Amino acid sequence: MQSTQIILAARPVGEPDDACFETRVVDLPDLEDGQVLLRTVYLSLDPYMRGRMSAAKSYAAAVELGEVMVGACVCEVLESRSPHSAPGDFVLAYTGWQTHAVVDARHTRLLDPARAPLSTAVGVLGMPGFTAYAGLLQIGRPQPGETVVVAAATGPVGSAVGQIARLKGARAVGVAGGPEKCRALVEEFGFDAAVDHRSKTFVDDLAAATPAGIDVYFENVGGHVAQAVTRRLNKFARIPVCGLVANYNATEAPQGPDRLPGFMSRVLSLSLTVRGFIQDEFVSEHQAEFEREMAAWIADGSVRYREDVVEGLENAAETFRGMLVGRNFGKVLIRVGEDPTLA
Amino acid sequence: MQSTQIILAARPVGEPDDACFETRVVDLPDLEDGQVLLRTVYLSLDPYMRGRMSAAKSYAAAVELGEVMVGACVCEVLESRSPHSAPGDFVLAYTGWQTHAVVDARHTRLLDPARAPLSTAVGVLGMPGFTAYAGLLQIGRPQPGETVVVAAATGPVGSAVGQIARLKGARAVGVAGGPEKCRALVEEFGFDAAVDHRSKTFVDDLAAATPAGIDVYFENVGGHVAQAVTRRLNKFARIPVCGLVANYNATEAPQGPDRLPGFMSRVLSLSLTVRGFIQDEFVSEHQAEFEREMAAWIADGSVRYREDVVEGLENAAETFRGMLVGRNFGKVLIRVGEDPTLA
Repeated sequence: MQSTQIILAARPVGEPDDACFETRVVDLPDLEDGQVLLRTVYLSLDPYMRGRMSAAKSYAAAVELGEVMVGACVCEVLESRSPHSAPGDFVLAYTGWQTHAVVDARHTRLLDPARAPLSTAVGVLGMPGFTAYAGLLQIGRPQPGETVVVAAATGPVGSAVGQIARLKGARAVGVAGGPEKCRALVEEFGFDAAVDHRSKTFVDDLAAATPAGIDVYFENVGGHVAQAVTRRLNKFARIPVCGLVANYNATEAPQGPDRLPGFMSRVLSLSLTVRGFIQDEFVSEHQAEFEREMAAWIADGSVRYREDVVEGLENAAETFRGMLVGRNFGKVLIRVGEDPTLA
Repeated sequence: MQSTQIILAARPVGEPDDACFETRVVDLPDLEDGQVLLRTVYLSLDPYMRGRMSAAKSYAAAVELGEVMVGACVCEVLESRSPHSAPGDFVLAYTGWQTHAVVDARHTRLLDPARAPLSTAVGVLGMPGFTAYAGLLQIGRPQPGETVVVAAATGPVGSAVGQIARLKGARAVGVAGGPEKCRALVEEFGFDAAVDHRSKTFVDDLAAATPAGIDVYFENVGGHVAQAVTRRLNKFARIPVCGLVANYNATEAPQGPDRLPGFMSRVLSLSLTVRGFIQDEFVSEHQAEFEREMAAWIADGSVRYREDVVEGLENAAETFRGMLVGRNFGKVLIRVGEDPTLA
């Protein structure tokens, strides 16, 4: 069996251009005991991948040059030499940007296609949904009547943040790029208000949407959105920081003035809590409860999600670049191969 | 009875110069029921006062032009029309930069001169000590074997932070200005190591003093110390922020580059907790336990403190300026009038 793989060919300087990616076809080894042969159905594209492409120290090891780009996938088991898997099973596996892979079955997790669409395992019921759930509830801790702001709000993390905030009795304000996304935030996801960060009146619009200030800012973008939000924070506001996608392609510290002293003054004068996190740290304590609660919320319609599915592994790089600048609308997936569970 | 007062005459631009302060003598009113006439023994000078001199929004209201400069004082009761106070009592009162005052007795707190020297009520057993105690234990939460770094370490907050950290089994590293203060940190206060931030080798010295990185940075200065510390932080490090004295006299955002995006990237990649606080928020829950524990630590010698006492209210402004740039050595007090409890 062969696998078509996209490897990291060069480290990006700024936006990852085509030279960063290379496609190759490799022969997969025969299965050993305990291994499974997988066919990729969905590849999840997520902002954290930009960090893995750089050699700079981050919260996870960088992808080595020549290695397959990392990523979570929904796969079908084609062959198995493990008692835990059988051909036809669907599993979650971290096989990355490729069509097929041979992995140890213990590194996969069985999915139940009857419970929810397969794709949700890397979206609202997977890492992005759990990032929203854990960061909002464990760090943001919104109280009834408080105001929660999240950017990239139509994305898989942001849309879950706003909807969970509302389920906890808070006012949810979403920031997104363009009127179409803003409309969807209110009409589709039930946010209390939406603000277009591309509008010239963004700062005023944000103020109008947050008349009582901001108590929780779920930070996943940084940049000019964060700057405007910071001015509206209330005393004792909490800022869970799970991403800074606006900075990911930056190649050097921006020109001044230096805003750090002013930010720290605000941390002090408002008794702010700024807390970076990766969802991993909450898995052992909260993952099971998340899956139970989120599955119920999806089933009863109180949490909705939107997917932006692009066909074909060959479109992964271009789709990834678009995601980093917000061209997607919803959770970004590459359909690498057929999903036989779709009607 | 007359009071000599120092009032805020002009808002400072940068360092508060002599034009900011004006001395006047006023006649105090006769006592009404419930009031006491106080004679100031000690005036506490603290960095937070710089913030109160500015009109800018901070965590407390600004001093109005023409008002007496704020401050906590140890006072002797000269006359009383309150059942709660008698002449000869010593009390803690927020009477500010003046020699005498008439206040409601309910706004004072009785001090016991037999328990500890009167001056400690505005130092190690008062607000600065409690700031150290609450910020370190409630936010910093040092674990045995972890490394705690604090700047302005010979000051009343810093010296308490380091000593409490050691009592909790952590490694205490103090940052101070000059070899004399650094020597005192190790020899007098028992820090594990001290680093001189004025030294050309400061960054390397800090690295040598924190071989296992830094788990808690108790932030009370900002500036170049904070910058060097940030590079040594470990994953999940905590930064209680109780002051930024290096910035207090700044008049505008410093020239670039803009270090905020880089700082936030570190918050994210290291899962840092950055938490501003004012000790007030912890008073109801932890003040009583603090007073009990700290008094015991002082009594058994496990916490030491140092005071920098300057005679005469007329020296308050110059002493205050010196404190903002670290010319003091220990808790800064103005002895406004005689302390009859001193042998």
